[in-house]
Amino acid sequence: MNYEAILHVPLSNYAYGTDEEHIVFRLRTARNDIKSCILHYGDRSCRQTPVLFSELPMQVIASDTLFDYYEVKLRTPYTRVCYYFEVSDGKESKLYYADDFHTGLTDERSEYYQFPFNRKEDIAEVPKWVNDAIVYNIFPDSFATGYRFISGCKCEKQYQGHLVSGKNGGTIGGILENLDYIQDLGANCIYLNPIFAAGEYHKYDLLDYFHVDPCFGTNEDFHLLVQTCHQRDIRVIIDGVFNHCGWNFSVFEDVVKNGEQSKYKDWFYKLQFPVIRPDNMEDYPNYSCFGYERKMPKMNTSNPEVIAYFQKVCSYWIKNFDIDGWRLDAANEINFDFWRMFRKTAKALKPDCLLIGEIWESAYPWLHGDQFDSAMNYDMRKNCRDFFALEQIDAAQFESRITNMLIRYPEQMLYAQLNVLDTHDVPRFLSLCNGNQEKFRLAVVFLFTFIGIPSVFYGDEQAIQGITEEDYRQVMSWKNTKMVEFYKNIIQIRKSNLALREGKFQTVKAKKNSRLFAFVREKNKQLIYVILNAGNREETVPTEICEKADVLFQEGVSDGKIVPYGFAIFQKK
Amino acid sequence: MNYEAILHVPLSNYAYGTDEEHIVFRLRTARNDIKSCILHYGDRSCRQTPVLFSELPMQVIASDTLFDYYEVKLRTPYTRVCYYFEVSDGKESKLYYADDFHTGLTDERSEYYQFPFNRKEDIAEVPKWVNDAIVYNIFPDSFATGYRFISGCKCEKQYQGHLVSGKNGGTIGGILENLDYIQDLGANCIYLNPIFAAGEYHKYDLLDYFHVDPCFGTNEDFHLLVQTCHQRDIRVIIDGVFNHCGWNFSVFEDVVKNGEQSKYKDWFYKLQFPVIRPDNMEDYPNYSCFGYERKMPKMNTSNPEVIAYFQKVCSYWIKNFDIDGWRLDAANEINFDFWRMFRKTAKALKPDCLLIGEIWESAYPWLHGDQFDSAMNYDMRKNCRDFFALEQIDAAQFESRITNMLIRYPEQMLYAQLNVLDTHDVPRFLSLCNGNQEKFRLAVVFLFTFIGIPSVFYGDEQAIQGITEEDYRQVMSWKNTKMVEFYKNIIQIRKSNLALREGKFQTVKAKKNSRLFAFVREKNKQLIYVILNAGNREETVPTEICEKADVLFQEGVSDGKIVPYGFAIFQKK
Repeated sequence: MNYEAILHVPLSNYAYGTDEEHIVFRLRTARNDIKSCILHYGDRSCRQTPVLFSELPMQVIASDTLFDYYEVKLRTPYTRVCYYFEVSDGKESKLYYADDFHTGLTDERSEYYQFPFNRKEDIAEVPKWVNDAIVYNIFPDSFATGYRFISGCKCEKQYQGHLVSGKNGGTIGGILENLDYIQDLGANCIYLNPIFAAGEYHKYDLLDYFHVDPCFGTNEDFHLLVQTCHQRDIRVIIDGVFNHCGWNFSVFEDVVKNGEQSKYKDWFYKLQFPVIRPDNMEDYPNYSCFGYERKMPKMNTSNPEVIAYFQKVCSYWIKNFDIDGWRLDAANEINFDFWRMFRKTAKALKPDCLLIGEIWESAYPWLHGDQFDSAMNYDMRKNCRDFFALEQIDAAQFESRITNMLIRYPEQMLYAQLNVLDTHDVPRFLSLCNGNQEKFRLAVVFLFTFIGIPSVFYGDEQAIQGITEEDYRQVMSWKNTKMVEFYKNIIQIRKSNLALREGKFQTVKAKKNSRLFAFVREKNKQLIYVILNAGNREETVPTEICEKADVLFQEGVSDGKIVPYGFAIFQKK
Repeated sequence: MNYEAILHVPLSNYAYGTDEEHIVFRLRTARNDIKSCILHYGDRSCRQTPVLFSELPMQVIASDTLFDYYEVKLRTPYTRVCYYFEVSDGKESKLYYADDFHTGLTDERSEYYQFPFNRKEDIAEVPKWVNDAIVYNIFPDSFATGYRFISGCKCEKQYQGHLVSGKNGGTIGGILENLDYIQDLGANCIYLNPIFAAGEYHKYDLLDYFHVDPCFGTNEDFHLLVQTCHQRDIRVIIDGVFNHCGWNFSVFEDVVKNGEQSKYKDWFYKLQFPVIRPDNMEDYPNYSCFGYERKMPKMNTSNPEVIAYFQKVCSYWIKNFDIDGWRLDAANEINFDFWRMFRKTAKALKPDCLLIGEIWESAYPWLHGDQFDSAMNYDMRKNCRDFFALEQIDAAQFESRITNMLIRYPEQMLYAQLNVLDTHDVPRFLSLCNGNQEKFRLAVVFLFTFIGIPSVFYGDEQAIQGITEEDYRQVMSWKNTKMVEFYKNIIQIRKSNLALREGKFQTVKAKKNSRLFAFVREKNKQLIYVILNAGNREETVPTEICEKADVLFQEGVSDGKIVPYGFAIFQKK
């Protein structure tokens, strides 16, 4: 038995409640090492000593290159559980508890693993609507000036004595005029990059947290947008930039002007006096910034006044505009407690308000249920890039990467992850594919058939490309390409199949040195198979799929064969 | 290379700030598998791509049966760090990041491990005084009625219409009269089991959170006690029971009487109406309890009114009585957010107030710096029991257990753990030793020379024994045994050697099938060696110790030999 591979972490993604009646237990073992794994569970408060244990067999729910992940969901008769695992490799059998291997039990109940109390308050919950969400992500400056139209014209206005600008003429009104396009595509949620008044076209250098940028329109425009979206059953998520502001934000102006006498002197992180705004971007400012970007001073988000201020911002947009969620910028650079307070404010006003942290890496520390519901899943993009676009990893390695995405959070959080191929911060995925639309389509199929919220960055459906920031944020293309039809189809497939939205995920085929990847989603006995040929050789569709299932959607699949870069989605007969 | 053994968890006890300038990084590997391990770290906000990395060699700081733990403390030039590990077993070398092994680097900085921002607010901090604390834990009913005297007499009084009782006559006044004894022993902190008004002698079934139990005395008595303690530089920690109350608590009475009309109907966990207090202890009540103890209804600690109430309790005793800390009962059964709010209240009033959670298992989920400073370390007892008392494990296994205690929290938390051999909830350790005082002494030496706060349960120093609850909570013995002198000596040794209080810990000798355990504590070049012979055979003192160090304290050590159950503490020349 490979002892070193075995891992369990109490009160983590290895042991968590999904509701008051169910607790998920997981154990990691070396791949193909263990023949059986059993959970033994008892009542921590059992009136008898030794505690009476019951047992449940565990199943491998996912595997990666090195490990199998055993899981069982216990319908628990107890609120307080003590437990241990029994693992056997066919040759020897061991009991595993207290992070150690044992050959026998103990009378001391406190010495087993503990699930102290399956408390309702500590069970992570996400808004139910995430299951059905299809997000369309709009970079406001680049999307639309009017009906199927983006002017491409620069905007320059004065706001509170400062220049605010846009590059491409996009407006809130422009979004409003194209809601039919978004809805026709199949999206039911828009996520807007920042819309509040700010200096640069991207609007991450905030001037005013309570007003829409004049280049984009007015608060009234935004109010009308949300209202109209809601009439169309489209939800609206906006971008919250609280880690830093713009250096012309009145509060920062005040510390520049009044120095240590400023009533805002504790609003910024590591401010030195006098505060100097350096002329050149190469100069290091004497205050903390977002990165070393002197125009974006970092806020002191542990100052109760700053917390209260952003709680007010949070309330303002929820109460007065009825927004449905916040995407939270640079979330991993802000202290945990700020997010806990922010969540309380948001959820008190609107319990199903979705909170998405911008965290590129595993967001586990933020996804315990006390901070965010979701994170932007850049690993989705990375893994699709390496498998579909760059062809750097084989199907087995791709499976391994997917397993990592499936295992790292409690299961309920997975369905709320914002899966992205593209955002305003990365080269267009189609460009990573060197413009190869067949490869790109495979990634899109995967995006829409995987667990989590698919997010389409405006123009991906129009096959927009771009490697540099200027290019990948380029103006929306208002043609009606074949790619749009493809998006409509794949979105429709997701919408009409519950298993694709809420089902479990299981790999069906993912061999070493192969580029054929097949998996199944399952819910309420509905089985949807997805098969992707990410290689340049014809492959055979696994017989267990093609013999027992009907094709829902495919390109290049017939007679049990799948052409290079072909795909198919099957439904079990 | 044993790939499966390698473990790193970002933003955990494997990567944490100790202050704004220092970040500790750890990597777990299979024992004796790796020849070198290097941390490569760079600036996440580096203006160049690829990021420039610097490197630092990592050292094995502890080992257990299966693993070595590599660590380096980085004096960080950056607030935002991306990093990876380079591990080599002499045959091959791998780069480890994003939970995967690589042979090369990537230009995408977000794909390395991330330490997003070493934020002051999220660095766990504990009160500085923990380093010097020696705790004396008093079970009030059993300790003292007067000067060197405990009456052993039952107490019965009426309080708010209910019977409150004591078994042995201990009082607050009794503690006051024996502070000289406690101080003479060497303790500088008393931790009192519950003192608030409650039905049973143990006072865990609360009646009134704002008053001392009449059997123990008055609030004025307690005020005088704290005042007098402080004059003697003795700190006072009290026991907070917030998970549950007693079933005669006025608030619970109200729900029994008024049912769903009670204004307290949401103050309890899973209450059903009408609320019935069962007559027999075998009957299951129709409300949640502590365990199934019908006399202790569980509070709904996520109700803001309940939180506010206990915040008031917290403030009351800190503000009016100047207590120095709370030991928090059944802490792992209460929701995390309750503790976060409680901490804020306590620390706002008294930043160096010590918060100790009653958590028997690894308390990692509570020790991120946002809840407790410390937990009651029952693993200290378990491990000493198995090695010293029961002789069930050998020195190598004992080392393994110690490593588990050393690695599971950020280092700053280790020094705040409340290490116990005995408490009011377990059989006396001396009884586990079958009354063998030599074995017991070894455990005591270990208690006082290990990292963390040593806690003496009243009477341990008088060699009190007891297996049953009645016995281990028996009246204090006011003799002056040899054991008292032993305690005074070992406490004095700890107090006069900084390395024993603040030093690092390193095992020196812990072989398989051996019962000789030796370790060293080190601080500012002071080295203190401790050698314990937990077996019935004479052993040899390792030459690296006896040749280079002077004896500070010993029993049965001479001429480089150590008798069965002998010990010695050496200071390096």
